[in-house]
Amino acid sequence: MSIETVSLNRSHGGMQGVYKHSSRETGTGMTFSVYVPPHQDEAKLPVVWYLSGLTCTHANVTEKGEFRRSCAELGLIFVAPDTSPRGNVPGDPTGAYDFGLGAGFYVDATQPPFARNYRMWSYVTKELPELIASHFPVDPKRQSILGHSMGGHGALTIALSHPERYRAATAFSPITAPSQVPWGIKALTGYLGDNREAWRKHDAVALIEDGARFPDFLVDCGDADPFLVEQLRPELLESACAKARIPHTFRLQSGYDHSYYFVSTFMADHLRWHAARLKA
Amino acid sequence: MSIETVSLNRSHGGMQGVYKHSSRETGTGMTFSVYVPPHQDEAKLPVVWYLSGLTCTHANVTEKGEFRRSCAELGLIFVAPDTSPRGNVPGDPTGAYDFGLGAGFYVDATQPPFARNYRMWSYVTKELPELIASHFPVDPKRQSILGHSMGGHGALTIALSHPERYRAATAFSPITAPSQVPWGIKALTGYLGDNREAWRKHDAVALIEDGARFPDFLVDCGDADPFLVEQLRPELLESACAKARIPHTFRLQSGYDHSYYFVSTFMADHLRWHAARLKA
Repeated sequence: MSIETVSLNRSHGGMQGVYKHSSRETGTGMTFSVYVPPHQDEAKLPVVWYLSGLTCTHANVTEKGEFRRSCAELGLIFVAPDTSPRGNVPGDPTGAYDFGLGAGFYVDATQPPFARNYRMWSYVTKELPELIASHFPVDPKRQSILGHSMGGHGALTIALSHPERYRAATAFSPITAPSQVPWGIKALTGYLGDNREAWRKHDAVALIEDGARFPDFLVDCGDADPFLVEQLRPELLESACAKARIPHTFRLQSGYDHSYYFVSTFMADHLRWHAARLKA
Repeated sequence: MSIETVSLNRSHGGMQGVYKHSSRETGTGMTFSVYVPPHQDEAKLPVVWYLSGLTCTHANVTEKGEFRRSCAELGLIFVAPDTSPRGNVPGDPTGAYDFGLGAGFYVDATQPPFARNYRMWSYVTKELPELIASHFPVDPKRQSILGHSMGGHGALTIALSHPERYRAATAFSPITAPSQVPWGIKALTGYLGDNREAWRKHDAVALIEDGARFPDFLVDCGDADPFLVEQLRPELLESACAKARIPHTFRLQSGYDHSYYFVSTFMADHLRWHAARLKA
């Protein structure tokens, strides 16, 4: 499991790296970024996983996320994977921004022509954690996860499926119930087929209805987000959490939209939330 | 003097805008960004000018500069102009990254074919300040300036030429003595011609030697900056300041390079320096 360093820059006292490797899950080269904060030699640090939204690569949050100052202060490693396989893979290009390239939805596809390469669930929950643990000073017992939009969906479903692994899970503008919204129905049909039972493991609201639990959630959305009402539907997750008695902090932020101007504004809040749970 | 809004996003409690206008100085459309922090109605706020480096537009610092959190806390408007005229102008493209497009060097060119359009000195010191004052809640008596690399050169030379206007001037990795380094010699020859006397108004070290003064300077450079020794030469400015008894804080930051990973790390420090002098 070797990795190639694409770039490595000192930032806020630590090191921001971008790396490439050959993924067994996706069958392609994959790029990801890792920020390692200043730390003592031999220290093992908590690691925060950040999953990105539609059309994004690792680069969007790495450049615009404003996470490094907080990660340096709090001693957090921050990992940002890509959102799909890239390169010459079957089914690509789909011609859509919300399906295929840049839109893997954090599932293992079962449908042709995506089944071989679109394995972002296994990539993000198995392959990449092993790779990160073997190359960076992480404490695998202290992991947490967050994400934006499609990546918020990924963070919530992965956390609900691995409550023993992640000590915190938060989201910016997540797609909370993909089975019930256009982006999600398109992607889950395309990757997993028509059997809606198979979708439930990849729908945070359905997972909670089916008994999955997590200690607590923080979710921020902007009230000027053009996708809020049709695609994100935070009220469905809020209601599922309330019914299941999962403690949750849901905030509707006035005047904010779906962009990284929103994400970067509340990033420090989220990282403090993570640090409090990772260090408890 | 009308402006067109390209984008407007809430960020850190204020509004980050990108705007276009038709410039009389450059004879082209010009794009710039303005961050307005949260403020009381009718308040007039101090304004910080940020000049960017080679190859950059307004977008680099706007996306990667990590200035908004500090500007929101300190109540500073932050303006980022472009670095050259863009569009169908004579002399463009030059085929170089360090001359012509994206490389205006903050001078008014006197040489053909650049003289009509490459008027970044007048654009940044006259036209754009008037435009900003007429469209945004700025207090023109409280202005300051900073920049990166070629923009650090711009900030230092503009501050030294207008000590009555700018209350603070700082720079990241500035080209301190363009008359003495390859980037500067190429640009000043191309824009201003062979007469080196005409260059002295656009060389911070020469300006100080010729009697220009400023209350104090803060300059940060990275010791892993590949341009430090040949192009930036901060020691020449440090020595000129010492000789002229201009108070100066020059810092060589260990492990940092020339990128926005460096700029963003120390942006908050610089903005605090500016705020202290803008509010005194």
